[in-house]
Order: sequence, then C-alpha cells, then structure tokens
Amino acid sequence: MKVSTKNSNFRRKTGQLTHFNEAGRARMVDVSAKAATERVATAQATVYMLPATLQKIQQGKIAKGDVLAVAQTAGVMGAKRTPDLIPMCHPLLLTSVDIDFTEEVTPGPDERCTIMIKATVKTTGPTGVEMEAMTAVTVAALTIYDMCKAVDKGMSFGGIALLSKSGGKSGTYIRTMAAR
Amino acid sequence: MKVSTKNSNFRRKTGQLTHFNEAGRARMVDVSAKAATERVATAQATVYMLPATLQKIQQGKIAKGDVLAVAQTAGVMGAKRTPDLIPMCHPLLLTSVDIDFTEEVTPGPDERCTIMIKATVKTTGPTGVEMEAMTAVTVAALTIYDMCKAVDKGMSFGGIALLSKSGGKSGTYIRTMAAR
Amino acid sequence: MKVSTKNSNFRRKTGQLTHFNEAGRARMVDVSAKAATERVATAQATVYMLPATLQKIQQGKIAKGDVLAVAQTAGVMGAKRTPDLIPMCHPLLLTSVDIDFTEEVTPGPDERCTIMIKATVKTTGPTGVEMEAMTAVTVAALTIYDMCKAVDKGMSFGGIALLSKSGGKSGTYIRTMAAR
Amino acid sequence: MKVSTKNSNFRRKTGQLTHFNEAGRARMVDVSAKAATERVATAQATVYMLPATLQKIQQGKIAKGDVLAVAQTAGVMGAKRTPDLIPMCHPLLLTSVDIDFTEEVTPGPDERCTIMIKATVKTTGPTGVEMEAMTAVTVAALTIYDMCKAVDKGMSFGGIALLSKSGGKSGTYIRTMAAR
Amino acid sequence: MKVSTKNSNFRRKTGQLTHFNEAGRARMVDVSAKAATERVATAQATVYMLPATLQKIQQGKIAKGDVLAVAQTAGVMGAKRTPDLIPMCHPLLLTSVDIDFTEEVTPGPDERCTIMIKATVKTTGPTGVEMEAMTAVTVAALTIYDMCKAVDKGMSFGGIALLSKSGGKSGTYIRTMAAR
Amino acid sequence: MKVSTKNSNFRRKTGQLTHFNEAGRARMVDVSAKAATERVATAQATVYMLPATLQKIQQGKIAKGDVLAVAQTAGVMGAKRTPDLIPMCHPLLLTSVDIDFTEEVTPGPDERCTIMIKATVKTTGPTGVEMEAMTAVTVAALTIYDMCKAVDKGMSFGGIALLSKSGGKSGTYIRTMAAR
Repeated sequence: MKVSTKNSNFRRKTGQLTHFNEAGRARMVDVSAKAATERVATAQATVYMLPATLQKIQQGKIAKGDVLAVAQTAGVMGAKRTPDLIPMCHPLLLTSVDIDFTEEVTPGPDERCTIMIKATVKTTGPTGVEMEAMTAVTVAALTIYDMCKAVDKGMSFGGIALLSKSGGKSGTYIRTMAAR
Repeated sequence: MKVSTKNSNFRRKTGQLTHFNEAGRARMVDVSAKAATERVATAQATVYMLPATLQKIQQGKIAKGDVLAVAQTAGVMGAKRTPDLIPMCHPLLLTSVDIDFTEEVTPGPDERCTIMIKATVKTTGPTGVEMEAMTAVTVAALTIYDMCKAVDKGMSFGGIALLSKSGGKSGTYIRTMAAR
Repeated sequence: MKVSTKNSNFRRKTGQLTHFNEAGRARMVDVSAKAATERVATAQATVYMLPATLQKIQQGKIAKGDVLAVAQTAGVMGAKRTPDLIPMCHPLLLTSVDIDFTEEVTPGPDERCTIMIKATVKTTGPTGVEMEAMTAVTVAALTIYDMCKAVDKGMSFGGIALLSKSGGKSGTYIRTMAAR
Repeated sequence: MKVSTKNSNFRRKTGQLTHFNEAGRARMVDVSAKAATERVATAQATVYMLPATLQKIQQGKIAKGDVLAVAQTAGVMGAKRTPDLIPMCHPLLLTSVDIDFTEEVTPGPDERCTIMIKATVKTTGPTGVEMEAMTAVTVAALTIYDMCKAVDKGMSFGGIALLSKSGGKSGTYIRTMAAR
Repeated sequence: MKVSTKNSNFRRKTGQLTHFNEAGRARMVDVSAKAATERVATAQATVYMLPATLQKIQQGKIAKGDVLAVAQTAGVMGAKRTPDLIPMCHPLLLTSVDIDFTEEVTPGPDERCTIMIKATVKTTGPTGVEMEAMTAVTVAALTIYDMCKAVDKGMSFGGIALLSKSGGKSGTYIRTMAAR
Repeated sequence: MKVSTKNSNFRRKTGQLTHFNEAGRARMVDVSAKAATERVATAQATVYMLPATLQKIQQGKIAKGDVLAVAQTAGVMGAKRTPDLIPMCHPLLLTSVDIDFTEEVTPGPDERCTIMIKATVKTTGPTGVEMEAMTAVTVAALTIYDMCKAVDKGMSFGGIALLSKSGGKSGTYIRTMAAR
C-alpha cells in the first residue's frame, strides 16, 4: 500500500485539503521559463538606539570598531549569502550591491535616535533580488546591534520593507505605505 | 617611514582622535579570560501582513509550501550561521534552539495582521547567545516574507529586540520597553 | 632541477603512468565551450525504518518535529550547496528544485517500512544538475535519519541513483535497472 | 484573538492532535544538561559501479583526477559541514575524522563491483557524532559518483548505516543487521 | 536633523573629503552594464620549505596524507568560495579551475626548497576571475602549510600574483615583473 | 577478492610503499587525547603595491571603499572560516581575532610600497590556531588586492609566515628568520 505525501502527513487525513498536495509542499518555484531581465530592488531597515549610543558610533568610541564600516561590509556579504539562508530562494548572480546609512540624531518621542539603512541590489536573471536587498539591510542591522549591544542592550530594529523593485513580468513596485 | 593604522586611514590625520587607534579598530573582542557558563537568550520579531495573507498561510494556500514549517527550519539553521554572518561575533556551540510563532488574526489599526516570532537559544560558553536569538527570528521573518511576497509585496517586519538573556558576568537582562 | 607533478608524487616514479600526468589530476573540467541549454535531472533514495518509526513520523510524534517538512527544506537547501560539498562540481544557477516523499507502510521481507524520496532539479547552463538531484535526496535522507535516530538507530538508506536526466550534448538518460 | 502555532497551521484545526503542539515542532533539542563525554561513531556506505569503472579508478584513468583522494578530502570536509546541512543537528568540535575505502573487484550477481566507504568520527561533547560519520560517507560517495558519472551514469550507492557508536548516556551501539 | 554617512562617520567632519562620500563607501561595484565575455586568469604562489619537508611530501611521509592531492582539492574548492571570502567580489559561475604544482628540489640561497602553485580559472561573465585564481593558489598554499607544519613550522609562502588575464573591456594583461 | 586502499590506488602497486597505507591517507588527525589549553598564534603577510596605490588607499580614493576597514573585516571573518577552507584543519572556538596594518610609504628597491598585515588569534582548545592566523592575514591581503586591482594589477603579496605561537604540548615557537 503506497501513500504519497508532500511535506505534511496531515494532508492524507484531511480530505478537504486534497488541493493542498499540489500547492502546499515546500519547493523552489520553477523559474526556468522566465526571461532573464535586469532586476533592481531597494529595501530598508531602521535601527533604534539611545542618543549616547549613536554618539559613540559617530565618535568612533565603540570598542569593537568602526561600526558602520563593518555593518556595510556585513550587509554586502549577507546579500550574497541569501540563497544559503532563505530556503526557497533561487541563487542569482548579483551584479551590484550598494548600502548606505542615514543617521537621525534628534531623538524621537520614545527618546531613541535612529540609523536608517537602505540597500539596492541588481541582477540580470529570471527572478528578482527583493530577498537579497531585504537580507542586506537585515544583516547590516544585526551587525550594528552586535557591535553596540555591550553599551545598549535595549536597541531594536524594524521597519524592514521593500521600498521598490523593477524588472520581470510583474513590473515595477513602489511602496507607498510607511513600514512598521 | 612606518605608519601604523587600524581600519581607517583618516585617524592618522585627525589628531583629536588618537585615542581611536586603540578603541576604533574592528576586532573580535578577546573573551579568552571569561568563564564558560550556561547562557540563554530570547529574541522576538513581528511580521505584518494583509489579513488575506495570514489566511492563506493558515489554510496552506501559499504556493511555495507550509510557510511556518519552512520558516522554523530556516530560523534554526540561521542561528547556527550567526558567526558566518555577523563579522565580530564569536563562534559558539549552541546546545538548544527553539522557535515558535503566535498569530494575531484580528487586524491592527493599519489593517495588518501579525505573526510574532520568538526564539530561545542556549549555549555553555564564554559569551552570550543574544546574536544567535536575534539572527534566528530575523531569518525566520525573512523566510515568511520570501514565501508570501508573490501575494503581498507590502509585507514588513520589525520590533526585532532581545527580550531577555541570562548567564555571564553581566547577569540577567529583561526588556521592559516595547520594541519598535 | 624542476619537477612537475600534478596531484601525486608517485607519478614521477612510475614511468608506465606518464599518461596519468595529463589525465590524473583533480580539476574542475572545462565547460566553457559548452552551450547553455535547459537541463533537468531526477534522483531518488529510499530510507528503511521500523514500522513503529514510520508510524511516529505519520502521527507527528517524533520529538524533533514534523520530519518530512524539515527533510524537504533540508533537501532543497542541500541542492543549492552542491558545489560547496562536491569538490569538482561546477556552480550552477538552479531554476527549480522539487522533492517529494512516498511512504510504503507495508513492511518488506526484512520487516522494514520505507520512505522513497524523489528530487527533480532544473537549470539552464553548460552542464547538468545530476549532482544537485543526488545531493538533494541524500541530504533529505540524512535529515530523516537525524530526526528519528533517537528511536531507531538501525535505520539505513540506499538505492541512491539517477532516475533520468535530459539536456546537454549527451542527451536524455533514463535508468532502467533497479538501484541497490 | 491570539493563536499559538508551532510549525503547522493544521494542528489548530485537528483537535485530536493537541499533544502535537508540544511534540511536533522542529527544534534543536536541548542538550545543555548533558555531560561532555568522548563520543565515537562509525558509519559506512557502498558504491556500486561497472567493473570497467572500478578499473579506471584503480588505473587513474578518470579524467577528473585521483578519485579516492578527492573523495576522502570531500568526506572529511563534509563531516565538518554537518550542522550546516542537517537542520536540527548540533554544532560540535570534531577531534578526529578518518575515512577509508575497500574495493571489491569481483563483480556481484548484478555485475557490479563495489567500493565500501567507512568513516570514523570523534568528539568530546554533549551529543554524539553519528550524523557526522553518516554525512562523511555520503559526501564521499557523492564525490565518487560525480567524478565517474561521465563514464557510468548507472552507478548507485546505498547501505548507508551507522555501524557503531559509543559514549553518552545511551552508551554503546553496534549494528548487527546488514544495511540495504 | 538628518545626516547621511557612508561607511565612515569621519567624513562628515572633514570638509576637505566631501568627494569621499561618493567614492569612499564599500560596495560591490555595478557590473550590470558590462557584457558577458569569456574570461581567463592565471595566478601563482610559491611555498618555501626545508629540503627534508619537500622530501617527505614527495615520499608520502607526511602524517596527514598525500599533501598535493589535498592541496589541489582545497584550491579548487577555495576558488568556488571566493565571493564568500572577499567582501566586494561578484559571484560568478566558474566554468573551469585547474591547478598544478612544480617542485624545485635544489635548495635556494636561503636553503629552502619550493613548490610553485599555478591556477587557471575561467568563466563567461561580466567581470573577471582574477580573484578566483588568486584565492585558489592561496588556499592551496595554506593547505600545504597546514599539512606540513608539524614538521616545519618555519615554512612560508609568497610571490602571490596575477600572471595573466584575458577577456573583458580592459583586455589582456601579462605580468612582466617577478613577484615578491 | 578485497583490496583495501587509502587515498591512492598506486599504493597497491608499489610494494616498497606499504608503510604508506598507514601514514599516507588524508585525515583529520586525532586530537581527542590532547588537553584543552589556551593557544595564541600570530601570523603576518606583506602586500606590495605602487606608491600611487598606497596613496589612494590612504586618501580614501579607491572606488570600492575604505580598503583597510573592509580588509580587516574580511580577515576576521576569514579566520572563522578556516576549517571550511583547509581540509584537515580542526574546528575550534576562537576567543579573539585581532588584525592590524602597518604602512611603509617609502618605496623599496623595486619601487613598491608595502602594507604589512599582522593577525593574532586565540582559542582554548586541544590544538593551535596557527592556521586561523595564517588564513586571517591571507584573506585580508586578498581583499586589499581585490579592492585595488582596478588601478594596480601588478600588486602582489608574500612573506606569509607564522611569527609566533604559544600553548599546547609543543610549547612556544618564535620565528627568527625573515619570511620570503
């Protein structure tokens, strides 16, 4: 008696979900029929910290080193590791990765200053680089956290979102809503 | 004529920053004198999405597969890759990684539903696992985004913060403030 | 006095093997003159286990989690890591990875039940994806073993073989013989 | 309304499986309370090939190079990559990896010759190295396949099993049954 | 008040370096507009060792194994890891990696014998494979050092340089000067 | 008829080398009986470049970014990747990695300026960190080459050697001879 399952043994038992056998398994979606076009994606993240922490970053007083130089390097390298980290993500040959930082030294209502991270990634391929841009800003944010956590454990980051992307069949997307 | 620089050639030229030569270079901080103790850290992230997206995740209708099963696997593997991603992070032998998800199906004021991701990581070693817990929730969040972005490009995630940590010389930390 | 060796210092001493200098060194074979065509390969593996183990997998009672969901994710990620693992394997941009499982709940003559793993991988490139398909099923099988070994150390797997491949100068191959 | 799920959204809907919430999620099992003891594990795999293929390996006539030297190197490196490949596997500091090959030049009933691969791995740690030994033989077998597939696509491998392990609370295990 | 920095917080303070904001940040240079052409690069390294060490390598008496077979495998695998190691390096699909060794058994004036390592790498892509060839010889040299350091800690290596490259807009380069 | 080989099929045929079967295979040497002690190693490398190239590095005019900041980050990360790159190298938990650069702006007799790279690595473990220190300086040197090669293809690096190491049964080593 043979029984075919995909990634859930529940499917077999839940008749009403037979459509799930086809849709529900984890796979790297087939993009072999898609044309290779130039693709660009830009993502962003915002790191929240105490004013004293931002000051230390700006004055080069963080003991682990020049925080933003390390975060930028980590972000570029992180973009290249995307298909190693995100299971169903296609490998792509990135042709450009660029990251920059904008510091807001005036504290917000929660008395936190911010560093906004923006990353733009390009490729020529059958699928887009949204995940690479998202991974770049995220790894850069994690790196800032790592280098400053000894002085400010309460740091956090958020607002991680795709700002825009172009290329491919689905065309251009531009985010209009603010990201939490 | 020999000139010693650390990671910035500017330092040499900015007399007022000579203290920076010692403090400012990027390095993996020496923890060889620290005792190996049991360390635990818990971090969290929140993913924001359209109600229809959460519904599709819950009904197993996302074309790439069972979203949370894949995100959980990716998060555990991401925790193990932390020292590969975060430049100045020490390698550690993780003894436990546990991730769970809480879904909020009632939309918030911005008409977004949420999935909250929480990861707890343990080790016995000379330094803590804050970065591993932070990386776990971040990679899980990126994976959810990847698997749903075809139906909801406006998804975002944030509120990435350390909830608590224990062990080591600096002792126990418990976050009291909400994370943005 | 200069002596040129490839990867064995023995060659120099064994006159009858001079042809070996050319043929015998380890290298990544030159595929730069081969045309990029669409390539597909399918491989399979079979995992043998106690009936009680398969039952636990099907009932979700394995302590480490939903075994096949994790194995599927691991297999897809393993396919992408192929050139990192197999020394002379060319890097390729995979355009599709799909894995599925078929359970045989009736024990065989050795009182073992089986899970058959099948993986299909695609690329458009100068060389084929046989190794990626073989690696995918192997990593999935290792993952099933890992998650169940606490309850069934005697599990084994085998029958790892290429079922078919198409594309490229050597054309289509379909396996006819059963694999041990 | 908050709903807590682990890695399957089905659990919520299938009342009879509430025990699954606790048992069913994918996690790296907590070994922080286990003592670090010396652990050894030995695993094996068997590669099946045409007599002419084994002859070419023995005569150094495979175009990609000295097959077993490369397979041995790949197997050792594969053992070290185990926690990167197998999602719920703990990272461990391997203290020894040793692999050897035994060739059987007399063909079996299916007219195939064999190379048997055996790997022994050691560590001192809180959990065993079964997976490292299994991964070592598997990656070595994949490498042999890769280097010979141009002359023998019908090669296969199997009989991948744990031969023995010692150390840890569960003590010594010695396989008695032949592995398929 | 918003302040935009790239990877140095010093830039803001050093008016004379405003051109640096544009030129000075670490990024993966945009090659998306460059044509994909066939690229070849050859690099070399020289390892210096005691005559007795070279003799042991040639006689297969190094305890860790067949040194050059392992170094060759490591060099080929190292070439594939280049974009993982060198932060601003583009990922490329290598189509060929070939490494060979030339031993000089007559000691030089410093009483050291040498092994010269040469690696040739090819790709078809928008940027060259100089770094892959340089990384291949370097990883091969490190591997020789690793396998012999128990008997000859004073080994060193050097003369790591690009011998030639062809393809791309900048055309062919052939090194004329000896490398230190 | 069974024939046992290690990593060379030649051994079988060369009677005079039977001792090689035991000594000659590639393996990760067993260190399980060695005590865990504190280990330190320092290595160095020297990069040779045109005076104009060093000037551009110092003035921040290299288009790819702040060269030494990126090289330092790459060197630290490279140290952590050592067991992934060097086949027979044991994995170790590094407790400290520190890299610095000394620039010599006065050209040597070959009209080249230099940057000397020095890396010190620590661990507490059963084997030393020589390879980690050697890998750190090498990856840093490769990164400097990568970032400057557009303006100075003739750059080279060398003099890669262990300066000193301490800890372990073999005790302290201090290099006395200059490294080529």
